[in-house]
Amino acid sequence: MIPDPRLSINQATIRHADLATALAVTADAGVQAIGLWREPVNEVGLDVAAAMLADSGLRFSTHCRGGFFTLPEGPARRAAIDDNRRAIEETATLAAAGADGSHAVLVLVAGGLPDGSRDLAGARSRVHDALAELAPEAAAAGVTLAIEPLHPMYCSDRAVVSTLRQALDLAADFEPSVVGVTVDTFHVWWDPELFEQLARAGLEGRIASYQVCDWRTPLPADVLLARHYPGDGVIDFGPITGAVLATGYDRDIEVELFNAEIWATPPAEAVSRTIAGFEAAVGPALH
Amino acid sequence: MIPDPRLSINQATIRHADLATALAVTADAGVQAIGLWREPVNEVGLDVAAAMLADSGLRFSTHCRGGFFTLPEGPARRAAIDDNRRAIEETATLAAAGADGSHAVLVLVAGGLPDGSRDLAGARSRVHDALAELAPEAAAAGVTLAIEPLHPMYCSDRAVVSTLRQALDLAADFEPSVVGVTVDTFHVWWDPELFEQLARAGLEGRIASYQVCDWRTPLPADVLLARHYPGDGVIDFGPITGAVLATGYDRDIEVELFNAEIWATPPAEAVSRTIAGFEAAVGPALH
Repeated sequence: MIPDPRLSINQATIRHADLATALAVTADAGVQAIGLWREPVNEVGLDVAAAMLADSGLRFSTHCRGGFFTLPEGPARRAAIDDNRRAIEETATLAAAGADGSHAVLVLVAGGLPDGSRDLAGARSRVHDALAELAPEAAAAGVTLAIEPLHPMYCSDRAVVSTLRQALDLAADFEPSVVGVTVDTFHVWWDPELFEQLARAGLEGRIASYQVCDWRTPLPADVLLARHYPGDGVIDFGPITGAVLATGYDRDIEVELFNAEIWATPPAEAVSRTIAGFEAAVGPALH
Repeated sequence: MIPDPRLSINQATIRHADLATALAVTADAGVQAIGLWREPVNEVGLDVAAAMLADSGLRFSTHCRGGFFTLPEGPARRAAIDDNRRAIEETATLAAAGADGSHAVLVLVAGGLPDGSRDLAGARSRVHDALAELAPEAAAAGVTLAIEPLHPMYCSDRAVVSTLRQALDLAADFEPSVVGVTVDTFHVWWDPELFEQLARAGLEGRIASYQVCDWRTPLPADVLLARHYPGDGVIDFGPITGAVLATGYDRDIEVELFNAEIWATPPAEAVSRTIAGFEAAVGPALH
């Protein structure tokens, strides 16, 4: 099957593949784009990773991930901010190395409540503070910080940004080229305001990345690993994808799957199944 | 410890107790109110249950539960609607049998996506249709149908009503005395719009029941059983309770816990721990 030209494999889908393998299986399958993760990039070093990406001929769709800045002021927060600075630099370098049509998008996961804290409002305000601190550096590097609202079941321990509306509200103080949003169907499909907020995101020029991933119950014991191939769950990808495209979104569409069974399959097989699921569930909305 | 006069034990917290035991342990602990479940009521029969409730001297705070009406038209949907009619009748009878200050509130859980369906918008519209069908009967019986938004992690298989805003939007076509909302902290604590929507619910006179229950991670393998005693998790009950009271809410406050460990403790002990948790986590906002 010839993959849809807009499909991008997020490296998390083939988590146990190193960078060389991830680039090879993605390109060999005829996929044109990839979203990378920081750990495998830094395993080989940024410059080597950029050269490998350039050699692959793939577009670079996102870098995953920055964020985790809900801690109160102190050394741990400073370390997190500094780490985001490095992630911005990596994103710019990789986007420059990717094929034409690459985008310098750094996906941000907000972080959860600090240990022992019940101050949700405070954690949320510190996400805004971190964006304000990082925005000038992102702007200088030509990088878009793309806040990803995560499903509310992750609110306490992973991401205090839970809805698209909230992510857009957070982004509102910044230029759309500097602070945007990542829309992942898995996280937002349930939201009664989804279509209204997608339209708003379009008007405000904020959709930096669109990702497709399915939802199915029962959830696994580790709810972080609950993500399924498009078509294997209950999400109706047609209307959501149509709404994203109606905003003028013309970038690649990633599939990012955290799922122990998928990780246990050979990377080339996971890519092949991703291509097929994407074509069946998302393809009709694209062509 | 003398229980807070507004604490109500929802019978689900002592799930393995039959009605007689549930009434006895609640009253013996000095708690003044109880929320009942349909199954143990129907086990003894409605008239007997009403007499037992009257004898207990307890107030009746809610009846749990109706709803589950997302099915398309057909015999199964008709059966669900008819079952809700019986629940309305039960609610009215029990509220009349409870002590002064009882309320005829039937908690509604919307239901999930029908098997094999991906039509979330359709399921949601059928919830509205069911409310429209049942509202005249509820009004005639003096019963308030209290839509409970459930945490979005239950959207696909249990409740397509996921936020307070959505529940209020659904209720808007009906009189507040006939269709209201149930606010349970466990389900709504994460919502960035919570305080705005609580204020709206107050202005619209929609809060029929307020329930307190804590959130903690990691979630158990069965996410239905993830509910904790107030104070055992990350929810900050003070501000939320304050916002509910600021709307003029003057009814009982229930604690409803689905949790295998709590169910494995003797009912009197679960009630005792509920009293203590409520006092420590919610009490300061009440007195």
